[in-house]
Amino acid sequence: MSLDNIFNPKSVVVIGASEKPNSVGLALAQNTLKGRKRREIYFVNPFHKNILGHKSYSSILEIKKPVDLAVIAVPSKLVSHIIDECIQKRVKGVIIISAGFAELGKNGKQLQDNISDKLKKAKIPLIGPNCLGIISLSNNLNASFAPATPPQGSIAFISQSGAVIDSVIDMSLGKNYGFSNIISCGNEAGLTLNDFLEFEEKDKSTKVIIAYVEEIKDGRKFIKVAKRITKKKPIIIIKAGKTQAGQKAVQSHTGSLAGESEVYSAAFLQSGVIEVNSLEEMFDLAKALSWQPRIDNGVAVVTNGGGCGVLAVDYCQELGIHLSKISNRTLKKIDDSHLMNPAYSRKNPLDIIGDALSDRYQVAVESLLEQNDIKGLIIIQTFQLMTETKKDAKVIISAHRKFPSKAIVCSFLGGKMTQPGIDLLERNHIPNYPDVLRAVKSMKYLIKNKA
Amino acid sequence: MSLDNIFNPKSVVVIGASEKPNSVGLALAQNTLKGRKRREIYFVNPFHKNILGHKSYSSILEIKKPVDLAVIAVPSKLVSHIIDECIQKRVKGVIIISAGFAELGKNGKQLQDNISDKLKKAKIPLIGPNCLGIISLSNNLNASFAPATPPQGSIAFISQSGAVIDSVIDMSLGKNYGFSNIISCGNEAGLTLNDFLEFEEKDKSTKVIIAYVEEIKDGRKFIKVAKRITKKKPIIIIKAGKTQAGQKAVQSHTGSLAGESEVYSAAFLQSGVIEVNSLEEMFDLAKALSWQPRIDNGVAVVTNGGGCGVLAVDYCQELGIHLSKISNRTLKKIDDSHLMNPAYSRKNPLDIIGDALSDRYQVAVESLLEQNDIKGLIIIQTFQLMTETKKDAKVIISAHRKFPSKAIVCSFLGGKMTQPGIDLLERNHIPNYPDVLRAVKSMKYLIKNKA
Repeated sequence: MSLDNIFNPKSVVVIGASEKPNSVGLALAQNTLKGRKRREIYFVNPFHKNILGHKSYSSILEIKKPVDLAVIAVPSKLVSHIIDECIQKRVKGVIIISAGFAELGKNGKQLQDNISDKLKKAKIPLIGPNCLGIISLSNNLNASFAPATPPQGSIAFISQSGAVIDSVIDMSLGKNYGFSNIISCGNEAGLTLNDFLEFEEKDKSTKVIIAYVEEIKDGRKFIKVAKRITKKKPIIIIKAGKTQAGQKAVQSHTGSLAGESEVYSAAFLQSGVIEVNSLEEMFDLAKALSWQPRIDNGVAVVTNGGGCGVLAVDYCQELGIHLSKISNRTLKKIDDSHLMNPAYSRKNPLDIIGDALSDRYQVAVESLLEQNDIKGLIIIQTFQLMTETKKDAKVIISAHRKFPSKAIVCSFLGGKMTQPGIDLLERNHIPNYPDVLRAVKSMKYLIKNKA
Repeated sequence: MSLDNIFNPKSVVVIGASEKPNSVGLALAQNTLKGRKRREIYFVNPFHKNILGHKSYSSILEIKKPVDLAVIAVPSKLVSHIIDECIQKRVKGVIIISAGFAELGKNGKQLQDNISDKLKKAKIPLIGPNCLGIISLSNNLNASFAPATPPQGSIAFISQSGAVIDSVIDMSLGKNYGFSNIISCGNEAGLTLNDFLEFEEKDKSTKVIIAYVEEIKDGRKFIKVAKRITKKKPIIIIKAGKTQAGQKAVQSHTGSLAGESEVYSAAFLQSGVIEVNSLEEMFDLAKALSWQPRIDNGVAVVTNGGGCGVLAVDYCQELGIHLSKISNRTLKKIDDSHLMNPAYSRKNPLDIIGDALSDRYQVAVESLLEQNDIKGLIIIQTFQLMTETKKDAKVIISAHRKFPSKAIVCSFLGGKMTQPGIDLLERNHIPNYPDVLRAVKSMKYLIKNKA
């Protein structure tokens, strides 16, 4: 079953489109219209003649031309009838946004099963019900009621919580990373997490797959699929409901069983999935893994602040990152530049001292990258009196272009005054972290075989 | 020995003041001048007649009036002579910014000992050498060469790394927390970390003490002092040089011995010091501890996003935070409001559902705070279509005013669109965290006796 008709449809109908302020129907209408240069957009609402200046049909069957994707946001008791019409119209995919199904208990589950059975018989793929919808940035499709459209990028985000998606989108606005696709799983009455993983496996716009997971329905298949995918693309998962308290909360959230945390962790480990403990960590790693190459173990730290260098090597040792010895040949290159402060450390961490200008960063970074057994650099910049934050970023970017198979993560520490340098780094796909620990953790996951 | 003449001097002289762009001498001149309405500022530099429009003396002895504090930034070989003059002038405190002492080895150590002996004999307290200087916000004193002045607040930051201070100041710009004092320890030839802790113990503008520590010189005294202080004010410490790699790096950074990490951790535990693993965590906790009351164990979670509620209770259970049962009486109050979505969770975490407006937050938050055994609230807001981020902040602020002895931490998740609510919360001293884990960790340290 191809999902192309869902993620890149030639035509979309929003059933339950509306003009009511703050309504799901309005958000869906506005969001789908953003892609109208690329595809036909239809609205269905029997109570309106016009929605946002577009004709409103009283039923999908009134639409003369074929419709690929139907997005449904009507009260749950009307959904079954709407689905009959969608089948009659021969749509090629359905997203049910409406809530009021299995998450409410037995009766809701029955209603849901009835709908999903009908669609299954008609061989029409279903996302939902009880979901936020989907966004496919590379196809200019926003079939969700999210309050904003995130920037385009190469991270695919699959989420078993719609609210988490909303916040994640707000977080990403004004940041330098972006998404290929965002998928809200909902109750998974039709397509499930495993199907979405397989879709992202093939989608060329996706480099890294991240997922918020409460429950995996077919564990055996998950392991098989994830094992295959992680050989090509990293999968990062945050598992909610790891404790007893969390499992109870999952049950009252979606009605599903979160299951033993150990079982999940074992499955993740076995299939090469990276398990993280927070949403922040998930995006920290996603940024690094989508922008930087994976490397063998062997890292050097460059810093203009001794204290932060100490913290960095502490973290490296704790996380199994091998600190390469700086060779005499490399030191000679650095010395020959005659740019260093006599107090510079000559060791890993390479402390180039607080009065470092960008020429010192350039010599240090390039000389270290030239050393064969150094595969990655953690570069720290503390904001001092003479620090040239944008120039430092520029020399790092150009050094990385010379050695694209080596990995660089940065921790330009600071706020207002450091931001121009940080933006420059990240627009050039060198990830920056506001804390040294987060930078080192991200480097850890770029390393294929840790000590 | 009182340090008031250092932190609130009636007059300051900068010896080595300069107009050279990006120089330490210029930054010191500019920063001290910021407090000129409050005190006399003098500059000494024999090569200039004027600096920034102020007379430049050729020696401190030329100044007719008395001088409380001398800030010295001249090449290390000149410092000894300058100190003789300072003693002759009977200054009441000395800060030596200049580097080139013990951190460079044996000869530097001798030079340093010579200077500190002289000052000791003259009973003049010394900060440094090899430091960034100090900033006392409540006294409008910036006697440092930091590139900016941070906002005023109630956090005292003592740091054995100057560069860390620079970055921390940049981080704080545009944030909602601020500092009482910032102290750069330098080589601690005179005053040491223990002295600074005792100063902050007495300073009424300081509510929380945080410190970046590489080495503690008098461990026995530290334990005694810290034990006494932590009964009144929290001390949060990040210890650098915890691993072998880190200890080696400390030695090449400041020439000091970082010592066994276990010994330090035991000392911290024994004296009630909170040890953290990253600068980010240090400020997360400092914000919570300086703004919110400490409480007994018993917490409820309020959220408009089920998934984040699950994560929150997972974290609570992992961190020993007791999740209070929501009483029938509390549920009745909530039900009686007739504001809830029928699908609301009725349990802890209290999921008030994605379509929650601020009136729902108000009823939920106030009803929970009224329940006796609930001592703290973790309030999550995901940014959804109808979310009223500023109004949500307002109802939380006013509820907290009614129950000031209970603790609230928030995780309004998002970026651009959520920021107005976050700023409102924090300006009213309710800490907000961009990740649920960081909010829960901060709540952990507000609880006096964990499970």
